[in-house]
Amino acid sequence: MKSYPIAKSRRVRSTPYTSRIEKQGVTAYTVYNHMLLPAAFGSLEESCDHLKKNVQIWDVAAERQVEISGKDAAKLVQLMTCRDLSKSKVGRCYYCPLIDENGNLVNDPVILKLAEDRWWISIADSDVIFFAKGLASGNKFDVKIFEPIVDILAVQGPKSFDLMEKVFGEKMKELKFFGFDYFTFNGAKHLIARSGWSKQGGFEIYVENTDSGLKLYDHLFEIGKEFNVRPGCPNLIERIESGLLSYGNDFDNNDNPFQCGFDKYVDLETDINFLGKDKLKKIKEKGIDRKLMGVQIDLTKILLTSSLNIKNNDGNIIGELRSACYSPHFKKVIGIAMIKEPYCKASSSGTIEIDGNSLALKVCDLPFI
Amino acid sequence: MKSYPIAKSRRVRSTPYTSRIEKQGVTAYTVYNHMLLPAAFGSLEESCDHLKKNVQIWDVAAERQVEISGKDAAKLVQLMTCRDLSKSKVGRCYYCPLIDENGNLVNDPVILKLAEDRWWISIADSDVIFFAKGLASGNKFDVKIFEPIVDILAVQGPKSFDLMEKVFGEKMKELKFFGFDYFTFNGAKHLIARSGWSKQGGFEIYVENTDSGLKLYDHLFEIGKEFNVRPGCPNLIERIESGLLSYGNDFDNNDNPFQCGFDKYVDLETDINFLGKDKLKKIKEKGIDRKLMGVQIDLTKILLTSSLNIKNNDGNIIGELRSACYSPHFKKVIGIAMIKEPYCKASSSGTIEIDGNSLALKVCDLPFI
Repeated sequence: MKSYPIAKSRRVRSTPYTSRIEKQGVTAYTVYNHMLLPAAFGSLEESCDHLKKNVQIWDVAAERQVEISGKDAAKLVQLMTCRDLSKSKVGRCYYCPLIDENGNLVNDPVILKLAEDRWWISIADSDVIFFAKGLASGNKFDVKIFEPIVDILAVQGPKSFDLMEKVFGEKMKELKFFGFDYFTFNGAKHLIARSGWSKQGGFEIYVENTDSGLKLYDHLFEIGKEFNVRPGCPNLIERIESGLLSYGNDFDNNDNPFQCGFDKYVDLETDINFLGKDKLKKIKEKGIDRKLMGVQIDLTKILLTSSLNIKNNDGNIIGELRSACYSPHFKKVIGIAMIKEPYCKASSSGTIEIDGNSLALKVCDLPFI
Repeated sequence: MKSYPIAKSRRVRSTPYTSRIEKQGVTAYTVYNHMLLPAAFGSLEESCDHLKKNVQIWDVAAERQVEISGKDAAKLVQLMTCRDLSKSKVGRCYYCPLIDENGNLVNDPVILKLAEDRWWISIADSDVIFFAKGLASGNKFDVKIFEPIVDILAVQGPKSFDLMEKVFGEKMKELKFFGFDYFTFNGAKHLIARSGWSKQGGFEIYVENTDSGLKLYDHLFEIGKEFNVRPGCPNLIERIESGLLSYGNDFDNNDNPFQCGFDKYVDLETDINFLGKDKLKKIKEKGIDRKLMGVQIDLTKILLTSSLNIKNNDGNIIGELRSACYSPHFKKVIGIAMIKEPYCKASSSGTIEIDGNSLALKVCDLPFI
């Protein structure tokens, strides 16, 4: 398939690391939160293999923060998510589906509790800032809402632990999964969380001091040589194998959290107040009409650029494939699809037309690994 | 400068016309409202010249609509914009800055009044839908808010009038600037407005019936041969020469409407209720600290990928260049810059560093033409 250059402009923001990753061989971009997000450094398969065995530094500045502070900050944050944050702790990250009044998804950020009255919503690709501003205004909340200058560097892969300990010291080892703390580099304090958009382990460095962040970037590559460090980015293969969902790809504002398998993040039994709560209760009572499932196709390559319909043997549409890749691990194409009832179960099968050929497809549970 | 391919996916939505424009030779994309927007068909200069003399068909499906309907629709739409819509008429388009509680810009859509209780907000590049949903929820408005399936085709250029008349009949001539009406093609009704993101004249066809829209697309090229029709897209040179501002490029959520020269769309004297009204009154009283201005540089090319600082002769930063292009008309580089007081006036000058060279820069009024 022919490739097309991306036209850069101020609107499609570069990151502080853009000039570095371009020297290091980034080969494709996507746009995420109005910002450049690297999409490949050469072969996705080689990069996936490297990520699973070594350590990579990712420019994920496109994971922007929405900072909410002030007297009503906790109330506003809770209003936006169906996950009960009443017992949340400072120094912890929370994966939280954001929900609108219809019970549909707005985003699936990681929320960081910086203080009782100060939060960062680390967003997927939609303008949560305007949702928050609208809600704050309508509810007359006493809050301040803005996008701080924070440009995340992710350090991902099994050797990230050794690399980060070597740079920041033994204290790094104490950081628990989805915990965060502050670490000093070159005189500047950096918030570092044990998190990231892979299942290979790692950290996200929330860089506020750009000068120090750039020095840190170079230092990580210098020190990381012995760990076979490479530049990388969220890897399509790794994230599909691991069942990490992507807002805009696998689900969007037309889907509800139950359809996306987010059940454990939907707290309907406590007395917290959030948008769409009544709608979600009704959906839960009634049951869902479709669900995100894994699919497998005996095929050695795929380049999915938009949804593809999935049919049953009678030729009726039973769902749509939303993300897919060739997995060297499974030696077939795997993907994430929204499948209708009663086909959204692991024993179902269907067909899909790819490049003019009708191919058999198996439905399976998520995650793949 | 090296170019980088865009990684396509469902999240970066294709349009119904994508396969057509790719056959027709699109050479670059940008992403706008999470959707592909063509950015070039070969040379920007040739395309600009063609647009000024002929007619082009543009795939601007990325100009998405936010539909707001219901009892409180007008109230919600008015709450979002500082432009007085109390005397607005069905069948008309209104260019409206959207404002947050701080008095800053959220978007600068064209708003179409479809009925007293049904509106389309035809948005620039930010998720106005979530701003609207947040406000509606907080204010307990009785409205329905969603993104309808509407994929705009723009027909732009001086010969667009002849082409559109030939396709839709004499009634097309009666359409006034920023008016809209319904026209039938191949049995399907299309909302067509006399509008578009160029100053060369033209129309925007709000395609709801995709099948008919695709037939219309092909028909426009067939019938348009005699008018020298070509595929095109919003043209960087034409829009800068014409002073058409771009949200995200020239201004964003850190700027207020007075800084952007939107004074005539800010109605502070009537009793309408909109967000940020008090803030805007204070800003107007106090006066602005910076303003969008034109700039000219004696240079034969430029590729601006992010802001560039502008300095005065003492080396102090007096503003930043946000958009720029080489204009064959002016035979120099022209651009749009946010310039601080007291330098934001037509007699000012400064310097800017481009590719390591310090160049003289003149400040001028907008629009250039």
